[in-house]
Amino acid sequence: MMSDLEDLKQEIVQFTQERDWDQFHNGKDLALALSIEASELNEAFLWKDAKDVNIEKIKEELADVFNYAILIADKYNLDIKQIVLDKLRRNAEKYPVDKAYGSAKKYNEL
Amino acid sequence: MMSDLEDLKQEIVQFTQERDWDQFHNGKDLALALSIEASELNEAFLWKDAKDVNIEKIKEELADVFNYAILIADKYNLDIKQIVLDKLRRNAEKYPVDKAYGSAKKYNEL
Amino acid sequence: MMSDLEDLKQEIVQFTQERDWDQFHNGKDLALALSIEASELNEAFLWKDAKDVNIEKIKEELADVFNYAILIADKYNLDIKQIVLDKLRRNAEKYPVDKAYGSAKKYNEL
Amino acid sequence: MMSDLEDLKQEIVQFTQERDWDQFHNGKDLALALSIEASELNEAFLWKDAKDVNIEKIKEELADVFNYAILIADKYNLDIKQIVLDKLRRNAEKYPVDKAYGSAKKYNEL
Repeated sequence: MMSDLEDLKQEIVQFTQERDWDQFHNGKDLALALSIEASELNEAFLWKDAKDVNIEKIKEELADVFNYAILIADKYNLDIKQIVLDKLRRNAEKYPVDKAYGSAKKYNEL
Repeated sequence: MMSDLEDLKQEIVQFTQERDWDQFHNGKDLALALSIEASELNEAFLWKDAKDVNIEKIKEELADVFNYAILIADKYNLDIKQIVLDKLRRNAEKYPVDKAYGSAKKYNEL
Repeated sequence: MMSDLEDLKQEIVQFTQERDWDQFHNGKDLALALSIEASELNEAFLWKDAKDVNIEKIKEELADVFNYAILIADKYNLDIKQIVLDKLRRNAEKYPVDKAYGSAKKYNEL
Repeated sequence: MMSDLEDLKQEIVQFTQERDWDQFHNGKDLALALSIEASELNEAFLWKDAKDVNIEKIKEELADVFNYAILIADKYNLDIKQIVLDKLRRNAEKYPVDKAYGSAKKYNEL
């Protein structure tokens, strides 16, 4: 079966190995790098309405977010599809449709 | 062709629609939510060596990161695989193997 | 009584007013700006041991953090000294010395 | 001369020493903790207009931000007032009033 997540992971891991960057990629720094990229994505929206955002900046920073998120999944041998589906299932329990419908409250305030 | 990213997107979007949460999901707040989840992932490593981390916490928080990153891609109709591969290509120019090999420097310091 | 926090606030607010930047400084964007600066401070430590950090970068980014933190306090008319001392008092209850001594655990795990 | 920043620093450092937490407080983890608190402050604004924010949550999280920012300044023996005033001076050069007036652009786009 084709898997585009698997394809992406292979491309990203190869990019990293060609540069011998594994030595820097401990989990803690990868998570830090992810957070920094998420912050750069947020900078695209700073002092602005969402509608005035530069889409090229979004693409670049969101790509960086996926890049590090995939490297972290690889680091810990996590199946991305599986962990996301597992979390959706837990969220479905915390946010049942009848309670959470149309509400932005956190589950512990519902 | 099968696509696990497309599958995930459909699951996540459906989860959101069932709860009528689209109304809250402007790009700016989605990016903010992503950043908050990235920060919660970092909290798993706070005051610790990477080796002492709780893997269940990593799974949960990384899943949340993917969740919002995918929602942002959906919001802006971005092809995740495409933007990541595009970015890798640009990074390959900024970090040519002969210069970047074994170095953690930023491209503008290489 | 002299107050260096009050002095700093006046300098920062004047800087902002001279540029007519109040219009952008709603609480949400100020908090976002603070988070972005905190992230830039973290970038000084990325892929590194704390000992290899560039102190000039620390100074710059930490100054930016204080800048926005003070603007947020001003926005909500908060007495910085008061809120920090109040929080210390609450933390003293959550982290009593006999339980928290030498431990990096969160209060709900103590 | 009285200094409320100096007072705060002493209170915070004492709180830390009483719990023997210095051992965890390397610069890298302190910066990470600061970033996590900044993120929790942002969570107060998530999915909301700035006007709907809970002021008690703002106080708590902003206090945590100051707490770690002051610990970082202490760690590197930085004079908070000095670094903030130094940065304001540099920002005044990057954002001269005649160019920056009423504009939210970054200095490199002015």
